[in-house]
Amino acid sequence: MGNCVEGAKGYFCRPKNTNVRLSLPVVCFVWQIAMIILFGVFIRYDEESDAHWAEHKKSHNITSDIENDFYYRYPSFQDVHVMIFVGFGFLMTFLKRYSFGAVGFNFLVAAFGIQWALLMQGWFHSLDLVTGKIYIGVESMINADFCVAGCLIAYGAVLGKVSPVQLLVMTLFGVTLFAVEEYIILDLIHAKDAGGSMVIHTFGGYYGLGISWVLYRPNLHQSKRLNGSVYHSDIFAMIGTLFLWMFWPSFNSAITDHGDGQHRAAMNTYLALASSVLTTVAISSLSQKKGKLDMVHIQNATLAGGVAMGTAAEFMIMPYGSLIVGFFCGILSVFGYIFITPFLEKHLKIQDTCGVHNLHAMPGVIGGIVGAITAATATESVYSREGLVNTFDFEGEFEGRTVWSQGGHQAGAMCVAIVFGVFGGILVGLILRLPIWGDPADENCFDDEVYWELPEDEESIPPILEYNNHMTHKHQDISESNFSVEQS
Amino acid sequence: MGNCVEGAKGYFCRPKNTNVRLSLPVVCFVWQIAMIILFGVFIRYDEESDAHWAEHKKSHNITSDIENDFYYRYPSFQDVHVMIFVGFGFLMTFLKRYSFGAVGFNFLVAAFGIQWALLMQGWFHSLDLVTGKIYIGVESMINADFCVAGCLIAYGAVLGKVSPVQLLVMTLFGVTLFAVEEYIILDLIHAKDAGGSMVIHTFGGYYGLGISWVLYRPNLHQSKRLNGSVYHSDIFAMIGTLFLWMFWPSFNSAITDHGDGQHRAAMNTYLALASSVLTTVAISSLSQKKGKLDMVHIQNATLAGGVAMGTAAEFMIMPYGSLIVGFFCGILSVFGYIFITPFLEKHLKIQDTCGVHNLHAMPGVIGGIVGAITAATATESVYSREGLVNTFDFEGEFEGRTVWSQGGHQAGAMCVAIVFGVFGGILVGLILRLPIWGDPADENCFDDEVYWELPEDEESIPPILEYNNHMTHKHQDISESNFSVEQS
Amino acid sequence: MGNCVEGAKGYFCRPKNTNVRLSLPVVCFVWQIAMIILFGVFIRYDEESDAHWAEHKKSHNITSDIENDFYYRYPSFQDVHVMIFVGFGFLMTFLKRYSFGAVGFNFLVAAFGIQWALLMQGWFHSLDLVTGKIYIGVESMINADFCVAGCLIAYGAVLGKVSPVQLLVMTLFGVTLFAVEEYIILDLIHAKDAGGSMVIHTFGGYYGLGISWVLYRPNLHQSKRLNGSVYHSDIFAMIGTLFLWMFWPSFNSAITDHGDGQHRAAMNTYLALASSVLTTVAISSLSQKKGKLDMVHIQNATLAGGVAMGTAAEFMIMPYGSLIVGFFCGILSVFGYIFITPFLEKHLKIQDTCGVHNLHAMPGVIGGIVGAITAATATESVYSREGLVNTFDFEGEFEGRTVWSQGGHQAGAMCVAIVFGVFGGILVGLILRLPIWGDPADENCFDDEVYWELPEDEESIPPILEYNNHMTHKHQDISESNFSVEQS
Repeated sequence: MGNCVEGAKGYFCRPKNTNVRLSLPVVCFVWQIAMIILFGVFIRYDEESDAHWAEHKKSHNITSDIENDFYYRYPSFQDVHVMIFVGFGFLMTFLKRYSFGAVGFNFLVAAFGIQWALLMQGWFHSLDLVTGKIYIGVESMINADFCVAGCLIAYGAVLGKVSPVQLLVMTLFGVTLFAVEEYIILDLIHAKDAGGSMVIHTFGGYYGLGISWVLYRPNLHQSKRLNGSVYHSDIFAMIGTLFLWMFWPSFNSAITDHGDGQHRAAMNTYLALASSVLTTVAISSLSQKKGKLDMVHIQNATLAGGVAMGTAAEFMIMPYGSLIVGFFCGILSVFGYIFITPFLEKHLKIQDTCGVHNLHAMPGVIGGIVGAITAATATESVYSREGLVNTFDFEGEFEGRTVWSQGGHQAGAMCVAIVFGVFGGILVGLILRLPIWGDPADENCFDDEVYWELPEDEESIPPILEYNNHMTHKHQDISESNFSVEQS
Repeated sequence: MGNCVEGAKGYFCRPKNTNVRLSLPVVCFVWQIAMIILFGVFIRYDEESDAHWAEHKKSHNITSDIENDFYYRYPSFQDVHVMIFVGFGFLMTFLKRYSFGAVGFNFLVAAFGIQWALLMQGWFHSLDLVTGKIYIGVESMINADFCVAGCLIAYGAVLGKVSPVQLLVMTLFGVTLFAVEEYIILDLIHAKDAGGSMVIHTFGGYYGLGISWVLYRPNLHQSKRLNGSVYHSDIFAMIGTLFLWMFWPSFNSAITDHGDGQHRAAMNTYLALASSVLTTVAISSLSQKKGKLDMVHIQNATLAGGVAMGTAAEFMIMPYGSLIVGFFCGILSVFGYIFITPFLEKHLKIQDTCGVHNLHAMPGVIGGIVGAITAATATESVYSREGLVNTFDFEGEFEGRTVWSQGGHQAGAMCVAIVFGVFGGILVGLILRLPIWGDPADENCFDDEVYWELPEDEESIPPILEYNNHMTHKHQDISESNFSVEQS
Repeated sequence: MGNCVEGAKGYFCRPKNTNVRLSLPVVCFVWQIAMIILFGVFIRYDEESDAHWAEHKKSHNITSDIENDFYYRYPSFQDVHVMIFVGFGFLMTFLKRYSFGAVGFNFLVAAFGIQWALLMQGWFHSLDLVTGKIYIGVESMINADFCVAGCLIAYGAVLGKVSPVQLLVMTLFGVTLFAVEEYIILDLIHAKDAGGSMVIHTFGGYYGLGISWVLYRPNLHQSKRLNGSVYHSDIFAMIGTLFLWMFWPSFNSAITDHGDGQHRAAMNTYLALASSVLTTVAISSLSQKKGKLDMVHIQNATLAGGVAMGTAAEFMIMPYGSLIVGFFCGILSVFGYIFITPFLEKHLKIQDTCGVHNLHAMPGVIGGIVGAITAATATESVYSREGLVNTFDFEGEFEGRTVWSQGGHQAGAMCVAIVFGVFGGILVGLILRLPIWGDPADENCFDDEVYWELPEDEESIPPILEYNNHMTHKHQDISESNFSVEQS
C-alpha cells in the first residue's frame, strides 16, 4: 500500500493492522496493575495529608490549618489540571475528524502519566532513604501534571499519526526521561525552572519532534483531506487555547516560593501572555494578503509568551521585561508556523502536526536563555540579600554560588533539556517503529474512524467522495429521496 | 397515539399536550416567590459572612481574616459549582438534538434546587432553635450544590423524556427527600460521607431509576432516531466529562476537615479517577470488535472512580487503595453500559438515558461499601489517636463508638440511601404520571423542538424524512435548487 | 453600494475597504511598543510581589506568607479572568458565522486592554507621587480585568459590525474613559461599587450603545441572513453564559474587604443569580406561543441578577433581598429583549447585536439604585459600628459621612456612569466613523469571512444562495454528484 518508510526493511512493510483490541487492553491492565503494586510498595501520604497532621502541627509550632500547603497550592493545582486535560485536549481538537482522538487520547495518556510520574519523580526527588517510601502531597500532584505536560506536547507533534498504544509507550518513556532530565537540571545543576521552559517545553517539544522524525511518513499527503480544520472544530480548539492562556499564570507560579514568589510569577506570566497576543495578531495579519487572520496562529502563538516565561517568571524580570519577552515570542512563533514548519517538513523530514516546534520548543529555548540572562544579571539591590537567596536557593552546598555562575548553570541546563529531548525522541521513535503497535496507514491518518466507534453522522464530509471513489450509503439515501421529490 | 402506559386508566391516555406556557411560568413564579418569603423568614448570614465578623473575630481570638472559612472552602466551592452547571449540563449534551434541553433544563433545575436546598438542609441541620433562623455561609452553598447534584443525577435517567415542569417537581421532592435522608445518615446514624457516595450518588441514581421505572414508555423506540449522538455533540459532552473529572477532587474534599482532611481527600480522588480511565479504556476496547473505543464509555465510566471515593476519600485508604477502587469501578461501569443498561430496559422496564445506574448508582454503592470497610479497619497506629477522633468525629454522644461499630453504621447508612432512592423515586414517579405536566409524546422524546424555539438550521437531519413522511420546507428548497441546477 | 450613513458627507460614502493588513499590524505593534516603554517608566512590583517581601514581612510584623494578598484574591482573580476571556468570548459566539470574530477579537481587545488599564488605573489610583511609580499586584490585575469588561460589554453592542482596528480604538478610549469615571465615582464621590454595577456595566452598556447609535447602519438588513444562530452556535454560547454565571460571585467579591466582605458578596450574588434564572425562564416561556423557551433569553437574562448585585453585593442586603433583586432583573431583562431592543432599533436607531442594554445597561442602573437604597438604609444594629465603617469606608476625610448621605452619593455616582457612557460613546463613535478603520459593508456584517482565513467547510450555509444569486463551487459539486447518481 505504499506506506512503508523508505529504506526500512521488509519487516516494516507489512500492511498496517490497526486492530488494538489485544494490545490496548493488555497495556492498560498490566500497567495499571503495576502502578497499584508500586504505589503499595512506595507511595505514602506526606505529613500534611496524613492523619498525623495534628501531631505534626504541634511538633512544628504550626498554629493554623491554613498553613497546610494545600491552601497555598491547591487553587493553582486545579488550574494546572484544567490546562492538562481541557487545555491540551481541546487545543488539539482543531482537526476536522480527529477530535475524539485529540481529547480522548490526551485524557488516557495524562491519566496514566500522572501515576507513573508520581513514582518516577518520587524516586528521583523525594525518596526517603530511611523508610524507602515516597511521601506525596499537593506539590507532588502539580509536579506529576507538569511531567505529563511534556508528554502531551510531544503528542502534538505526532497527532493523528500514531495509535493509542504508541502514545502510552511514548508516555512511559517520556515520563522516565523527564524525571531523569529534571533531576539533572533541578537537583544536580541546581538551575531554577519553575514553569518549565526548559524542563517541560524544550524537552517535550524536541522529544516529540525527534519521534516524528523517526516516524516520518513520506506519503502522508494521502490523508491530506483530513489534515485541516472546519469552522466549529476551530472553535472547539479555542476552548483549549483560552484555558491554557488564562491559567498559564497559575502554571508558572504553581511551585514557586510561597508569598512574593507565587505572586510575582503569576503577574509576569500574565503580562507576557498579553503582549504575545498583540504581536501574534500583527504578524498573522501581515502574513496574509488582505490582512486576514489565521486561526492556527491565534490558537497557538498567543501562548508563546507563557512558555517563554517559564524559567524567569519568579525572577525580578520587571513588568516591562515580561512584556518584551512576550512581544518577541509572539512574533517568532507566528514566523515559525509560516516558515519553519514547512521547512522542517520539506528539508528535515519532520512532520509536526500541531506545530509544537513553534509553540513549545523555540519559545522554550528562548525562555531558557531569558532565564540565564536574568539570573546572571540579578543584583542584591533589586532582590535584597534575603530575596536573592530565596529566589535562587543559594543555600546548603550552593551557598557560595554567584549569580553569574547561576546564569551559566542555567544555560547548561538548557542544553541538557535539548539533548534529552532530541536523543530521547529518536530512541523512543525507533521503538515505536516496531510494527506491533497498531499505527494507522498513511491514508488513514487524522481519522477517528480508525480507533473510535463513530456515531452515524448527518453532517458527513462530501469531499471524501472524490477520494473514496464511491458514494457512501448515506449519500445515496439523500440523493434518492431528493430524486423522489423531484419525481412527485 | 399509542403513547399510553399499559394498564393505565383512560385518564392517562389523552393525547399529549406539551404546551407549558401556563404551567412553567406559574411554577417558576410561585416557587420563586415562595423562596423569597421563606428566605425572609428563615435565612440570615452566619457569623463569618455577617458584618459583625469583626466583633466575632475579637471575641473568638481569631487573629486574621484568612481564618474565615471562605478562604478554606471558596476555591472548592467554585469547582463544585462548575461541576454542577457545566459538568452535569454538558455531560448530557451528547444527544444529537437535545443539547438545549440538557444544558438549559440542568441550569433551571439547579438554580431552583440550590435555593430550596438551603432551606431544607438548613431546617434539618442548622436551624437555631433559639432565634428560629438558619445561618448560611460558604459551606451551606457547597451543601446546596451537593444536594442539587442528586437531582441532576436523577435527571440523567429521564433525560429527553420529561418536561421542564416535571423536572422542577422532581427537584422539589428530590431536594426534600435528600435533606431527610442526609439528616438520617449524617446526623442520626453519624456516618461519614464527605463526597456523597451514598447520600448523593446512590440516592440520586436510584431516585432517577425509580422515576424512570414508573414513567416507562413502551413505545420509546418511536424516537429512536434522536436517541444517539453526532460527532460534535460527543465533543460537547467531553467538556462536561472533563470538568467533572478534573474537579472531582474538589467535590470530595469540599466539606472535609480543614488541613489534612481536605488534602488527603483531594489526593485520593485524583488517584482513583486516574485509575478509572485506564480500565475504562481497556474494557471499552475489549468490548468492540477491532478494539475501537466507545465515546459513551469514555464520557462516563472514567468518572466512576470519583463516585466510588465519595465516602472513603478522607479516610486513610492509602494511595494504592484509591487506585484499586478506581481500577474496579472503571471496569464495572463499562460492563454496566454493555450488559446492565440493556438488561434493565428489557427486563425491568427501566429506561436509563444517560446510564446513571452505571455511573452513579453502582459506583455509589461500591463507594459506600468501601467506606464501611475502610472505617471498620481503621487503626490508631495509622490515624493517630487524634486523627481517628477528627476523621470520624468520635466526639460528644459518639465519643465511645468503635471503628468496628462505625463500619456497621456506614453499611446501614448505605441501605437508607438505597431505600430513600428507590421508594422516593417510585412515589415521585407516580406524581409525575399525572397528565398535567406537559411531557412529550413517545415520538417526540429527545427532541428540543418540543420545548425550545430552535434556530432555522442549515445542518438539518435527513433521516428525519423517513419518520415524518413528508419533506420539511427547507429540504424542499434545497432539492428544488438542486433540481434547477440539473435542468440548466 | 448603498451602505452610506444617511446625511453623511461624500467623504464617508466611499466603498468599504476591509483590508486591515496595514492598519491592524501597525496599531498592534505601535501600541504594544508604547506599552513596553510606559511600563518601563512607570510600572513596578508592589511590596507583596517584590523580592523585598521578606523584609516587608518583618517590618510589618506579618508572621506568615499566607497573609500575602495573593492568597486572598488569586482564586477570585482566576475566576474573573475566565469570565473575561471565555465568558464574554463564548457568550458572543452565538452568531452562526461570527464565532471566530467573537472569541478572537474579544481575546485581542482584552489582551490589549488589561495592559492599558494597568497604566490608566495606576495613574489615577495608585501613582506614588514620591517615586513616580505605579506599584502593581494581584488586585491591580483584577481591576485591569474589570476595566476591560466595560469595553467588552461595549463590543457586544457592535458585534459583527466593526473591524478589529475599530475595536482596538474603542478599547483605547474606553479604558481611558473608564479610569476617569472610576476615579470620580470611587475616589472623589467615594461611592462603593465592588462588582461594578455602575462603573462597569452601566458605563460599558451605554458606551456601546452610544457608539452603536453613531455607527447606525440603515441597510443592516442586507446581512440579516447571518444575524442569527444555528443549533451548535447556541451551545457554544452557553459555555460563555455558564462560566459568567458560575463565576459572577467571584466577580462581585474579588476586590471587596477581606473576610466577611468577600464572603457576603459571593453569597449575595449566588442567590441573586439563582433567582434570575427562574424568572427568566418564566417570562421567556410566557412570551412565546406554546410556551417554548428562547435561547437568547436563557443565554443573557439569567445573568442580570449578577449585574444588578454589583453595587450592593457586600452590603447587608440580606439573602432574601438578593433574591428579590434577581427576581425583578430576570423579568426586566427578558422584557428588554422582547420589547426594548426592537424599539431601540426602530425608533432610536440603535442596533444592539447582543442586547447589552438588557443585560448590562438596565440591570446596571437597577444595581446602582439598589446600592443607593441599601446604603441609605444601613443601620448600626445590622452592621455593628465597626462593620458600618468597614463596609462603607467611613474613614479619613469621609469619617463623618452618614449612611443617608452615602445613599445620595451612590445615586450621584450612578448619573456619572451614565453620562460618561453616553457621551463617551457618542464621541468615540464619531472617531470610529472615519473611513480609515476597515469596517465591513452592510452586506458583510456578521461574517467572519471578512477578517479571517476560513477553513473550507463542509457544512456550508445553503440559504446564502438566494442572496448571492450564484451557486458556490462546492454546491455545484454536490449537485452534480447527486445528479450522476440519479442517472445511474
